[in-house]
Amino acid sequence: MNKSSKIGVGVIGAGRIGRLHIEHLAQSIPEVELIAICSLDAVGIESLTKQFNIPKTTIDYTALLADPRIDAVLVASSTDTHVEISQAAAKAGKHVFCEKPISLDLEQIDETLAIVEKAGVKFQVGFNRRFDASFARIREAVASGEIGEPHIMRITSRDPSPPPIEYVKVSGGIFLDMTIHDFDMARYLIGDEVVEVYAIGGVRVDPKIGEAGDIDTTVITLRFQNEVIATIDNSREAVYGYDQRVEVFGSKGMVTAANPPTNTVTFSGSEGSHAASPPYFFVERYKAAFLSELQAFFACIQEGTPPPVTGEDGKAPVVMGFAALKSLRENRPVLLSEI
Amino acid sequence: MNKSSKIGVGVIGAGRIGRLHIEHLAQSIPEVELIAICSLDAVGIESLTKQFNIPKTTIDYTALLADPRIDAVLVASSTDTHVEISQAAAKAGKHVFCEKPISLDLEQIDETLAIVEKAGVKFQVGFNRRFDASFARIREAVASGEIGEPHIMRITSRDPSPPPIEYVKVSGGIFLDMTIHDFDMARYLIGDEVVEVYAIGGVRVDPKIGEAGDIDTTVITLRFQNEVIATIDNSREAVYGYDQRVEVFGSKGMVTAANPPTNTVTFSGSEGSHAASPPYFFVERYKAAFLSELQAFFACIQEGTPPPVTGEDGKAPVVMGFAALKSLRENRPVLLSEI
Amino acid sequence: MNKSSKIGVGVIGAGRIGRLHIEHLAQSIPEVELIAICSLDAVGIESLTKQFNIPKTTIDYTALLADPRIDAVLVASSTDTHVEISQAAAKAGKHVFCEKPISLDLEQIDETLAIVEKAGVKFQVGFNRRFDASFARIREAVASGEIGEPHIMRITSRDPSPPPIEYVKVSGGIFLDMTIHDFDMARYLIGDEVVEVYAIGGVRVDPKIGEAGDIDTTVITLRFQNEVIATIDNSREAVYGYDQRVEVFGSKGMVTAANPPTNTVTFSGSEGSHAASPPYFFVERYKAAFLSELQAFFACIQEGTPPPVTGEDGKAPVVMGFAALKSLRENRPVLLSEI
Amino acid sequence: MNKSSKIGVGVIGAGRIGRLHIEHLAQSIPEVELIAICSLDAVGIESLTKQFNIPKTTIDYTALLADPRIDAVLVASSTDTHVEISQAAAKAGKHVFCEKPISLDLEQIDETLAIVEKAGVKFQVGFNRRFDASFARIREAVASGEIGEPHIMRITSRDPSPPPIEYVKVSGGIFLDMTIHDFDMARYLIGDEVVEVYAIGGVRVDPKIGEAGDIDTTVITLRFQNEVIATIDNSREAVYGYDQRVEVFGSKGMVTAANPPTNTVTFSGSEGSHAASPPYFFVERYKAAFLSELQAFFACIQEGTPPPVTGEDGKAPVVMGFAALKSLRENRPVLLSEI
Repeated sequence: MNKSSKIGVGVIGAGRIGRLHIEHLAQSIPEVELIAICSLDAVGIESLTKQFNIPKTTIDYTALLADPRIDAVLVASSTDTHVEISQAAAKAGKHVFCEKPISLDLEQIDETLAIVEKAGVKFQVGFNRRFDASFARIREAVASGEIGEPHIMRITSRDPSPPPIEYVKVSGGIFLDMTIHDFDMARYLIGDEVVEVYAIGGVRVDPKIGEAGDIDTTVITLRFQNEVIATIDNSREAVYGYDQRVEVFGSKGMVTAANPPTNTVTFSGSEGSHAASPPYFFVERYKAAFLSELQAFFACIQEGTPPPVTGEDGKAPVVMGFAALKSLRENRPVLLSEI
Repeated sequence: MNKSSKIGVGVIGAGRIGRLHIEHLAQSIPEVELIAICSLDAVGIESLTKQFNIPKTTIDYTALLADPRIDAVLVASSTDTHVEISQAAAKAGKHVFCEKPISLDLEQIDETLAIVEKAGVKFQVGFNRRFDASFARIREAVASGEIGEPHIMRITSRDPSPPPIEYVKVSGGIFLDMTIHDFDMARYLIGDEVVEVYAIGGVRVDPKIGEAGDIDTTVITLRFQNEVIATIDNSREAVYGYDQRVEVFGSKGMVTAANPPTNTVTFSGSEGSHAASPPYFFVERYKAAFLSELQAFFACIQEGTPPPVTGEDGKAPVVMGFAALKSLRENRPVLLSEI
Repeated sequence: MNKSSKIGVGVIGAGRIGRLHIEHLAQSIPEVELIAICSLDAVGIESLTKQFNIPKTTIDYTALLADPRIDAVLVASSTDTHVEISQAAAKAGKHVFCEKPISLDLEQIDETLAIVEKAGVKFQVGFNRRFDASFARIREAVASGEIGEPHIMRITSRDPSPPPIEYVKVSGGIFLDMTIHDFDMARYLIGDEVVEVYAIGGVRVDPKIGEAGDIDTTVITLRFQNEVIATIDNSREAVYGYDQRVEVFGSKGMVTAANPPTNTVTFSGSEGSHAASPPYFFVERYKAAFLSELQAFFACIQEGTPPPVTGEDGKAPVVMGFAALKSLRENRPVLLSEI
Repeated sequence: MNKSSKIGVGVIGAGRIGRLHIEHLAQSIPEVELIAICSLDAVGIESLTKQFNIPKTTIDYTALLADPRIDAVLVASSTDTHVEISQAAAKAGKHVFCEKPISLDLEQIDETLAIVEKAGVKFQVGFNRRFDASFARIREAVASGEIGEPHIMRITSRDPSPPPIEYVKVSGGIFLDMTIHDFDMARYLIGDEVVEVYAIGGVRVDPKIGEAGDIDTTVITLRFQNEVIATIDNSREAVYGYDQRVEVFGSKGMVTAANPPTNTVTFSGSEGSHAASPPYFFVERYKAAFLSELQAFFACIQEGTPPPVTGEDGKAPVVMGFAALKSLRENRPVLLSEI
């Protein structure tokens, strides 16, 4: 690709994440030109196109894919459409940035990855947390040997409040909707593959989540090929806010990533000292990471390098999610090779 | 017991913990009179008796138990002697403070507890960490409902360096030697019983530990009756020092106990900022707790109240240790009722 | 002003701060239209206009002021031009955002403020730190009475490295170049006026700064009308990075603002624990604040409200700077009324 | 002195500090024998002698000094008796540990130091904070060059609540009663002499303190011979507890000592996170330091080395206190050479 020309981009889906991507594309990534948005929400999209001077809108993603000015698409529509759109985009020769999960069907994932490979386009999955400065620092400390050989990892990942029950019902369950990010983080931080998963959990936050067939509280143990043992703990509701921490312990030391504060002020009064809550939720917490993942995607297009989050990276956490579900149901550790 | 008269005390065993108890008894607990020490180490004991003006020493614990001035004994000898001495002491009408574990044999524990009960003496087990100010604050936050219903607990417990291999061989294994403290802490902090244990682990610190039939790195998942899920992670070697942290997450908040610093100084230089290591090991970290547990023991003698750590509290972590061992060997969650 | 139409903006000066403003105007403030840039640096400006599609560039600020599409100007040129340009802009009916200091000549400041008032345009001074989230939280705690009556304030403000000697020579000296921000912060946080200043200082960082007639290390004591006592300490070189902290102590408590970390990771190793440095310098540290001050400026234009940092706010720290200089020279506390 | 025999000790004065010394002597310093206590409080002393088996009590300090078994005395009586007793003790050949201040009369201090020198006994002043682990670490960082050349120091020293007004009236004023500790800390940490003092302050906590002729809030600036500039800020009432912090900034870095927490627990709830208060007051905060200063005193007797806090160290802060008082009254910096 000619580095001097701008990359034409289309965005498919304009929900919460889609809008964030649109904002970043329009304001903060000078090397792209945002050419078209595809959204079924005609009203909501109007203000967006006006605010950011977007030339073209459509409710038909095939029309968007037919536009020759578009070099790359961002797939931020609902999960059940990811596979169809990603495959069509790849076949149309567009580079694809696809939100997680690619699909909840492993065969469809494999099919998609095969089509992408055949098409020779870039395919990046939206695991934005890899681009967080603190987690990147953790990865560096592990990869560089700063902490020696890693032995134990702990990931804490708790949402500030549960999603609507209607969402829970179609989410694929906590492992594929929420823990999937932590599964990716686990693989990324350790730089190795998981071989076995043990999940335990229950309904502690809201009985309606249980009625919807899901759980809201879980602790998952991972065994890696390289013998690292990791735990992930999730809750759908941490009243003190979005809790995203990581710790890796190794033979030469330990690295821990704490939650960033919304401000650095401590109040000390007669009842002790008091500090601010963490940023509200993922949009606030990972704002810079959402931007960085797009910058990395466009950089790999411009420079012809592999995407930093591959299709395989998109598949592995789905496998882990199914293993966790099986483990929970059968109350035993489950090998990934069983999935 | 007449509160105005001093409690006569004998100490059996003068190793590292025994000496610490002797020092506390001699210096910091005015309501007791340290009457006799029993130790097989005739040389080492001489300096102790001289330093603290201890009237009587013996290598025969039965002689110590025969002394009518002695109201209570501290059993700090090797684990394999706890049962015999505790039983003899109870039969002699002495109150007993017994170091953990009571025994690695559940039948012997039951027998001992029955003898103690029949004798009507106080029996306290040396789970000193319950008396740490930070962990006591955690317990209070859970018990008072400050964090609402507890959902998830994490205990990190890592030693600064592994014990000698000769010790490892007779220790009973990591679960009964090291994790046993964390098992007690788990029960204490949540105030409920564990029903199931899942243990995963390996040899990451020193192959000699593996050759001795033990592991040095483990992560244990506990399921409580009240649905709390807890993890304990242990390592025999944390190069940054003795790592003893706890976190309890509940419906209304979270409490975390960090490691105390040896000093509060931060150095900021061109490479970032630098803070001090935690206290070296358990003697330094839990010095105040070791004193407090003795004060609590003598207070319950004086006031006729039940000991804060009962015989049942001494037994439960041993059961959990056996369950963890079984889980590790069979790679599956194990119910305590299976033990 | 019609809220639906965009505010036409011209920027005069394209040095470090000017470029930051241009970037923010072009990318992150949708309610403005960046119409023209005036800069003497014809080469540097070309890449800017290309990157951000800026319609017009000029080396003659009067040409910029003559453009009727321009409603407001940002004056980010060298200090010695602030007065001339601000006055011309006000006379041309443009709203003015002027970088600090307005001038190092109090008469010229007064003259400028009079012209601005007569012209009826908005005039805001670039004290960006007021818009930092942590300092805003400190101000709130003081203003709301959360800490009761304020008694003592401490401001630490240290640069990562000294500016070039050529800059030092024309800077107006440390008090008017560097401390001026802290003087503003002091007035803002306490919400009251300073009556007396005592300054002590010396040359500790670089003898060349002394040869240039300036100092590089200083501690200033302020006495407020409301009896608050404040200290400001400055250094031109903190090897650990840009150090910007504030503490206000009052009858009901204390608030402290720490430096934000560049990441939240702590490494714990055999030598203790290690945390990251603060953001490099003011562009990194106050990035969000630089944007917020512009947003506030345009909001007051749109809403017809007074600017959050007034011309008087621009003058007062200059008076304090002269008082500090007099105090340093005469080694005695100096009343602001002496200036 | 024969290291194998115990040092006979008498304590004169059994108020708050006296009792703390007695407790330490009786329990924690095996190399001494506590032989006699002199106190005017016959009732209070009885429980002490009983608790600690002290052989002899008296209301006449000359009787105590006449006891040949006594090698050293601790003078913890009221300030106005320090000189008389210290001089008599030295003349009687006893080593003297004298609480601060030696006296509020500089001539009497000089006279006392001359008598001590002539008598050839050890004389240590009770500046206990030098023995705090965190402040000792700060001193080490300065002395070793770890922070390069020191430039700026800040000492924050605030009491949890003001003393009774009756005490304020006879205390000698805030500078000689409270700041005196910080004056000593300043000299100790920098390892250099102060040449000039500037004090500013007022009555913010309690008007009764003003009526008693004292102030309760002050900020003092110190100029050292080696050009270090230091500030000390004091308040008689910090509602969040005893606040004792230090920061030294130098050419190669900065060291800061924070307040230790009473426990390491953080509660995170919907209103942010909450941490414990610092230890209540000096007895709690400096418990270990109070013991260490006595151990150092007896070590220097046993080893024939100079005391770690000399008579000159006892005098210098009194000179600084008078300079601060003069500075406050005359609102100008005052040279110590003026006193």
